[in-house]
Amino acid sequence: MKLGIVGLGRMGGNITRRLMDAGHECAVFDTSDEAREALQKDGADSADSLQALVEKLPAPRSIWLMLPAGEITESTISQLSDLLDPGDTLIEGGNAFFKDDVRRARELAEKDLHYVDVGVSGGVWGRERGYCLMIGGEKDIVENLDPIFNTLAPGTGDIDKTPGRKKERFDPRAEEGYLHCGPVGSGHFVKMVHNGIEYGMMQAYAEGFDILKNRNLETLPEGERYDLDLADIAELWRRGSVISSWLLDLTSIALSEDHELEQYSGQVNDSGEGRWTIEAAIEEAVPANVLTSALFTRFRSRSDNTYGEKLLSAMRQQFGGHVEKPMSPDE
Amino acid sequence: MKLGIVGLGRMGGNITRRLMDAGHECAVFDTSDEAREALQKDGADSADSLQALVEKLPAPRSIWLMLPAGEITESTISQLSDLLDPGDTLIEGGNAFFKDDVRRARELAEKDLHYVDVGVSGGVWGRERGYCLMIGGEKDIVENLDPIFNTLAPGTGDIDKTPGRKKERFDPRAEEGYLHCGPVGSGHFVKMVHNGIEYGMMQAYAEGFDILKNRNLETLPEGERYDLDLADIAELWRRGSVISSWLLDLTSIALSEDHELEQYSGQVNDSGEGRWTIEAAIEEAVPANVLTSALFTRFRSRSDNTYGEKLLSAMRQQFGGHVEKPMSPDE
Amino acid sequence: MKLGIVGLGRMGGNITRRLMDAGHECAVFDTSDEAREALQKDGADSADSLQALVEKLPAPRSIWLMLPAGEITESTISQLSDLLDPGDTLIEGGNAFFKDDVRRARELAEKDLHYVDVGVSGGVWGRERGYCLMIGGEKDIVENLDPIFNTLAPGTGDIDKTPGRKKERFDPRAEEGYLHCGPVGSGHFVKMVHNGIEYGMMQAYAEGFDILKNRNLETLPEGERYDLDLADIAELWRRGSVISSWLLDLTSIALSEDHELEQYSGQVNDSGEGRWTIEAAIEEAVPANVLTSALFTRFRSRSDNTYGEKLLSAMRQQFGGHVEKPMSPDE
Amino acid sequence: MKLGIVGLGRMGGNITRRLMDAGHECAVFDTSDEAREALQKDGADSADSLQALVEKLPAPRSIWLMLPAGEITESTISQLSDLLDPGDTLIEGGNAFFKDDVRRARELAEKDLHYVDVGVSGGVWGRERGYCLMIGGEKDIVENLDPIFNTLAPGTGDIDKTPGRKKERFDPRAEEGYLHCGPVGSGHFVKMVHNGIEYGMMQAYAEGFDILKNRNLETLPEGERYDLDLADIAELWRRGSVISSWLLDLTSIALSEDHELEQYSGQVNDSGEGRWTIEAAIEEAVPANVLTSALFTRFRSRSDNTYGEKLLSAMRQQFGGHVEKPMSPDE
Repeated sequence: MKLGIVGLGRMGGNITRRLMDAGHECAVFDTSDEAREALQKDGADSADSLQALVEKLPAPRSIWLMLPAGEITESTISQLSDLLDPGDTLIEGGNAFFKDDVRRARELAEKDLHYVDVGVSGGVWGRERGYCLMIGGEKDIVENLDPIFNTLAPGTGDIDKTPGRKKERFDPRAEEGYLHCGPVGSGHFVKMVHNGIEYGMMQAYAEGFDILKNRNLETLPEGERYDLDLADIAELWRRGSVISSWLLDLTSIALSEDHELEQYSGQVNDSGEGRWTIEAAIEEAVPANVLTSALFTRFRSRSDNTYGEKLLSAMRQQFGGHVEKPMSPDE
Repeated sequence: MKLGIVGLGRMGGNITRRLMDAGHECAVFDTSDEAREALQKDGADSADSLQALVEKLPAPRSIWLMLPAGEITESTISQLSDLLDPGDTLIEGGNAFFKDDVRRARELAEKDLHYVDVGVSGGVWGRERGYCLMIGGEKDIVENLDPIFNTLAPGTGDIDKTPGRKKERFDPRAEEGYLHCGPVGSGHFVKMVHNGIEYGMMQAYAEGFDILKNRNLETLPEGERYDLDLADIAELWRRGSVISSWLLDLTSIALSEDHELEQYSGQVNDSGEGRWTIEAAIEEAVPANVLTSALFTRFRSRSDNTYGEKLLSAMRQQFGGHVEKPMSPDE
Repeated sequence: MKLGIVGLGRMGGNITRRLMDAGHECAVFDTSDEAREALQKDGADSADSLQALVEKLPAPRSIWLMLPAGEITESTISQLSDLLDPGDTLIEGGNAFFKDDVRRARELAEKDLHYVDVGVSGGVWGRERGYCLMIGGEKDIVENLDPIFNTLAPGTGDIDKTPGRKKERFDPRAEEGYLHCGPVGSGHFVKMVHNGIEYGMMQAYAEGFDILKNRNLETLPEGERYDLDLADIAELWRRGSVISSWLLDLTSIALSEDHELEQYSGQVNDSGEGRWTIEAAIEEAVPANVLTSALFTRFRSRSDNTYGEKLLSAMRQQFGGHVEKPMSPDE
Repeated sequence: MKLGIVGLGRMGGNITRRLMDAGHECAVFDTSDEAREALQKDGADSADSLQALVEKLPAPRSIWLMLPAGEITESTISQLSDLLDPGDTLIEGGNAFFKDDVRRARELAEKDLHYVDVGVSGGVWGRERGYCLMIGGEKDIVENLDPIFNTLAPGTGDIDKTPGRKKERFDPRAEEGYLHCGPVGSGHFVKMVHNGIEYGMMQAYAEGFDILKNRNLETLPEGERYDLDLADIAELWRRGSVISSWLLDLTSIALSEDHELEQYSGQVNDSGEGRWTIEAAIEEAVPANVLTSALFTRFRSRSDNTYGEKLLSAMRQQFGGHVEKPMSPDE
């Protein structure tokens, strides 16, 4: 199957390579000459414009967009919608907001164009491990793309079968690592919640390791202080504990390389998904204290003492005469 | 009524003065000569040892301790328990943990000494405004001390009467600003929860003002940014809004003096009460998300980027290649 | 000054009455005959259509909308925009989302109509106490309406002056209980944050009183259980404590009437403001743990055991054989 | 190596069997005849009293206690301390509080008895999968017990090696699934934090699946509602996603059996570890919002509408006339 791919960054490039490794043909476009040339060298059919890309593909065409969320995705879809023919399909593989998917699909449907949204998990490990794919769109269009999704997904691998899954009731694609979740937007919705959970899990580990790390404070009672080896503990928990996970595998790797984590600032970014997850929870009136706390910790990690904290100090001074002056960082 | 007072810091000193202003006699002790002399000048009968203090008081004696929580309170109670006679009473007015009250009262009861715990709210404004008193102890002992409590409390003042309070059902002392809450420990328990609520309320204001303050960020959409005058808003909300409160009065004072709060570090301390409140909630299996979040914000306010936050960065680098390097503070 | 008022529910009706009490003329409209007649009897000039209302007002007209948020406000503004003349002003006094204000003002400006947004706090007590008003809009338009705002606001009353407020620097209107916060939308934005803070403060009290209430559980250690009188404690804290507030005044009223609160379900609604406040915090990357927890508690209060909680039970059964079966409510 | 085991519940019984399968001799005691007989049939040397158990073991003895936390553990240790000889060792494998370990070890040391604390993870799967062991105690005593720990632990299995672990720097036992964490108490401390993290991770999944589940509410905008198959999604995420974990494996099993989770009440218990983790965080002044929220969700899951929630309703009625009456459960 020949697929067009727009956006050859780390994710888009590796997706292209995984597809070509499996024998798919890929026509590719990126505004960066360098990115295009790198993929061309690896066997892709490189186009130097969206127009040229469209011409390289047989109708009905399928073009996968792997661009940063926002303006660039919006304008590329707009341009392509003028270049494509009725029956063609756009696949949005970036981190789009699911409500944008719904809107775009409605707009494209007026030109008889199809829209498929795919949430992609797997990060830099995906080319080798495969990508977990969460797909939203029309049933037949998604089925036509099955060879692409099947190639990108990790497959069953050596992961244990879940005992209760009977073939008739369940979608067999889930065991291969990809799933048609539902109508347009549902792929990115599921991916969004996936990332929300990811934030929560990461924060659970972060708090736990913080409590371990601080168990050696001099302010603690004697005999109840421990100088723990967190790299060994992370490794230990990978083995038979209730909290073993891939994130813990990565934690063990990171701690084995840099126990004190001194190379990291601890100023942690967040992408749209974490925020949108909270907004979805609010829209549904679902309490989501853990996912929200995880997001807020990231916000706080990127700031100095906040205006709100200073206001606490100011109130304390007013009612109690507690003076909390600015200190040097080491104080 | 003649009362002994141990501990002549800001709180102990002002309590003594408020009592003397109302005609009570006070015998006082503090390890600081300076503190003793200041009170002596204001009319107190100063003793230069605990022994001397005890001798200055007629039996049955009542001695009010106003000391920092911890070791010093513990050892002073121990010394006094040897100096006092059966029937004498110790009043612990500091910020003791209520379980310590229960233990101490049991120990002192073996020597026929009485123990009363008093939670005191009012801060530096108390000498003038009066102190809100939460009292635990034996009924008759607390009643004997009523002249003291009545003097220290703010009285009804010009605060509106609560319509539904019928004399028979309710304790009239509550309207005067002091209350016998229950057996030993209950005074400090109620004061502890008071402080827990205080943390939560302060944090509610802090977050709200933070959201107001940050409404002028350049990253926000044009036309939806506001450069708000927070001093005016604090003042406004004192008038007829649902969130008017004494803490808001203080906020308005603070913001009228220093709108940017630049004199404050924002590194906010916490006393034992906030922590004990959470432990009580856990002991009772009561969810207390707001009070706990308020406490944790103070913890975080006093630290640089935490080990836990660095671990988040480390995990992100492992799975996504996101690099979050240490930045200079201004970056 | 003659003002048009659309929407004569509890809030709109009382606002009209407070204005008329002070000598303003009010032309009023509501789709309910009953509501119109009640106000007519109180002295208002009642119109039986929007068209009729517009005709009763001298140009340039000012019409205050006090309608439920949502569709009805939107369609009323749309109708009025066709009936009004250039230079007329619409005042939106309901609980609108500030981004809707910004959009509407842009649309109305194309017809040379002005738009002022007013956040109103005060609830059922407002007619008597006055309403705290947070106003957004063009400077001169807001100043023209000053007689209206000044009448509705509580005025300085007997609330203590904030010492640091010097006349030149500060807006004198804040002391009267109304404030021109900034451009269109800023009034509702400030009101929105006000309600967010309100949620947080209410939840702080709720958690504190819950901890007090549950201190008598039989599972707690003997000698550390207290059967506290929460009505007395609420009354006590009104007097000289750090946490005195108007919400505490109301709490004392409620507890003096019904100590066990048995008439209340505890299923607590939330309006849009609480939710929008969190979304604003997220948009600004401001951590708002307390305000969010307060909102989520309300969500949870309205539901039975959630699917998420059942999933916790299911996981526990899988890894530990812990069985948590459905129980009858009393178990 | 011959080991004594006291407490033959599910955990103690399976530990005994795993040891015997590997050729260790086990002398066992339980107050239940039935439990003793079952193990005897499986090859254990059954004793009908603690005295008899001690006599069956060669000095220096090692006895593993696997009892419910609390009184029974405390009294068994007390009895054994009178029966054992200097140089003998008690191994506490239950879910003890680490500060109790520290206290007990001090008391036993006065009789020249050794104390080792072992946190055990693995649940009902442990007999087959092996148990992840977190060990605290004196270095040489722990090393003497190595054959026992090595047998109980899962071993390296087919879990990928962590690349950065160089033999010299790291404890090779971690890769086998057991670790000498540090002095007495550190084993249970690390296990305690493990469980705290477990609560947080479980809650992250619970919230995420709740958001997925509620995406089909009729109140949501048309075209943005999805009827998602959560069993398929759980299975999907096991494959190549960032949030794959053993808990997710269990989730997939549970959902494949009972998609609606109707057999579960959702009233979720908590053990001491979750609570102690928060207390440790507070003692260290480490913010732990996620772990705390996870605990509080369990508290709330076990209660009807709280007194605190009713107080919110009461305040709302006071200031706004909002009436929230008791509803029938289905309303």
